[in-house]
Amino acid sequence: MSRVTLLTDFGTRDGYVAAMKGVIASIAPGVPIDDVSHDIPPGDIPSAAWALSRYWSRYPAGTVHLVVVDPGVGTERRALGALLDGRLLVAPDNGVATLALERASRWTAVSVQNENYVGPDRSATFHGRDIFAPAVAHLARGVPLGELGPPLAEPARYAFPAVIRQGGEARGEVVAIDRFGNAVTNVPGDWLGREARVHVGRAVLEVRGTYGEAASGEALALVNSDGLVEITVRDGAAAERLRIRRGSRIRVRGLRRGPENGL
Amino acid sequence: MSRVTLLTDFGTRDGYVAAMKGVIASIAPGVPIDDVSHDIPPGDIPSAAWALSRYWSRYPAGTVHLVVVDPGVGTERRALGALLDGRLLVAPDNGVATLALERASRWTAVSVQNENYVGPDRSATFHGRDIFAPAVAHLARGVPLGELGPPLAEPARYAFPAVIRQGGEARGEVVAIDRFGNAVTNVPGDWLGREARVHVGRAVLEVRGTYGEAASGEALALVNSDGLVEITVRDGAAAERLRIRRGSRIRVRGLRRGPENGL
Amino acid sequence: MSRVTLLTDFGTRDGYVAAMKGVIASIAPGVPIDDVSHDIPPGDIPSAAWALSRYWSRYPAGTVHLVVVDPGVGTERRALGALLDGRLLVAPDNGVATLALERASRWTAVSVQNENYVGPDRSATFHGRDIFAPAVAHLARGVPLGELGPPLAEPARYAFPAVIRQGGEARGEVVAIDRFGNAVTNVPGDWLGREARVHVGRAVLEVRGTYGEAASGEALALVNSDGLVEITVRDGAAAERLRIRRGSRIRVRGLRRGPENGL
Repeated sequence: MSRVTLLTDFGTRDGYVAAMKGVIASIAPGVPIDDVSHDIPPGDIPSAAWALSRYWSRYPAGTVHLVVVDPGVGTERRALGALLDGRLLVAPDNGVATLALERASRWTAVSVQNENYVGPDRSATFHGRDIFAPAVAHLARGVPLGELGPPLAEPARYAFPAVIRQGGEARGEVVAIDRFGNAVTNVPGDWLGREARVHVGRAVLEVRGTYGEAASGEALALVNSDGLVEITVRDGAAAERLRIRRGSRIRVRGLRRGPENGL
Repeated sequence: MSRVTLLTDFGTRDGYVAAMKGVIASIAPGVPIDDVSHDIPPGDIPSAAWALSRYWSRYPAGTVHLVVVDPGVGTERRALGALLDGRLLVAPDNGVATLALERASRWTAVSVQNENYVGPDRSATFHGRDIFAPAVAHLARGVPLGELGPPLAEPARYAFPAVIRQGGEARGEVVAIDRFGNAVTNVPGDWLGREARVHVGRAVLEVRGTYGEAASGEALALVNSDGLVEITVRDGAAAERLRIRRGSRIRVRGLRRGPENGL
Repeated sequence: MSRVTLLTDFGTRDGYVAAMKGVIASIAPGVPIDDVSHDIPPGDIPSAAWALSRYWSRYPAGTVHLVVVDPGVGTERRALGALLDGRLLVAPDNGVATLALERASRWTAVSVQNENYVGPDRSATFHGRDIFAPAVAHLARGVPLGELGPPLAEPARYAFPAVIRQGGEARGEVVAIDRFGNAVTNVPGDWLGREARVHVGRAVLEVRGTYGEAASGEALALVNSDGLVEITVRDGAAAERLRIRRGSRIRVRGLRRGPENGL
């Protein structure tokens, strides 16, 4: 039996997410449905892309991931169906898949539109229920991805900020603040040399191996569980303490010798 | 295997919802349990009724829906068990089922009280765990609804505001604000003529087929995914922009010829 | 098939919880995973302990409970695996299990460290995904607890405030405020005599059997669904009305004759 996951910006209290679950359970009875989150800020495509990047490949092959963060519902944007290293993904084709596509070894994609699987009756405002949920359920039942629509050669990509490596220094930025106030950057951890320092605002932070190497309340940098440089405060909230937000610029000095660009 | 859904106003952090899930899993091992929401504002019966109206019939026949929004716990209010078009519902008999009952083609109801299924040991404050959860689990295992208690001919109804149609005009109100700031009204979308306009405060809104027909930031009206007139702002929050809240009065002009009352 | 439950302070929007679910589903395909909550205040060990105390024993034997509230991640704190009256628990060994351990009739514990089950590759910051989730999944598949590591004779205990019984009076405190604003105390309900009164600030509250015995808006005390004295306001929020917070001192007079200490 496949497993289905759901990531949306719907909140839960209006019952919209449950309507989607009901549609899925009607077509694929008994399928386990895991909530990822329904608390993505409304319409926040990069937040959804970062979240997806953290779990899509942790699930086993055959899992069907559904993402509905869809500020363009009711416009001409396409519906994306994709197979990434054995996991299936259904989402609006608006860039939420960008990081997952980058990190997959192999992927194929289609434009979901076969009315045998998405149904001819569609509201103008709730494609999550009327298009995406049925598509997901049919995939969970074993319908091949290619049945859902024609190939989609170039899924939409979100223009994430680039990290620049130049002159022995990396210039990047904070791409996400997590619930603990940790600031995730776009600088790869494997760029760091032994004496690397992270500059953010007026602060200059040492890079430690783990929280346990810092004193309570001390600001530090770490390579986080996704392999990225992260700014943190032991037993505290770095975003607040260091006045960092998404988009804050950072510089990292003391890099290892290596390629001059990347992520 | 049946599927169970849960809608409460308990929040999750205190562990009360998990206590209910544990009771259900003890009586009906392996049953899939879908969270709808635990974020209904405390005691807000109409919000729960609206949420329920959006998902109850999307689930397959045999699903057991549990709603625990129960400001009257510990008073004499009854416990409702119902069968609506093949789906089962267990809830306090306080009006949360009003809209689902209205929309079902057929329903039957009982007063849940058979101690073989709800257990003689009941706390005074947590019927969700001690009465509703066991009843739900037994229904999920296949116990017939009629075993749970005697018929309940007139389940409690919540007095939702009426929409009045008179003189070519509909007078209704905003019944819910969703997470995106969209304002759902109680005016049926199929009342609208081609040139209908929605009046709210000083604003006069055109009715469009979809968000894609409005400019970014434009206020408009739509027929939403439940068939009701909804006030929205493309890429924005209508409630904030137009200063609308639950209970705000609206008028719709330009109706189709039709019955002079309804919903 | 076992069932798994998850309690964390991660929030959901970053995708960390879903990464854990994916790891579990990869090792134990098809296992039902119930969310308890991901809204524990960051690092709040006593809140997690209270939540766990409310549901761990409601689930059937064989259930595997996972708690990840882990302010000490990356330090030397151990990983706890425990069997309590037939239910399994995996958590950081930091006191979150204190109340469950107290209430279990029988328990055994191990220090989770066998690399056959937790994997040799571990990030420094996300043991939930890299250590706890694999351990939970292997337990759900039927690996015996004793395989996960050596016995742990004295799991860490959180120093919950004591309740003192002296001179016919109990002196305790508020240990939790729930979502409804009810204030849970650490005074056992079975200490109360017929004429017991609860003193909190300047208020003196009668003890009633149920909400239905109070007028709307009236402050009262009850024995709650966990057997503890709780301060509440019918149709209102006691914490706000009576200006109570976690840690507020209370006294109860009018006790039954009985042991001079306890909980």
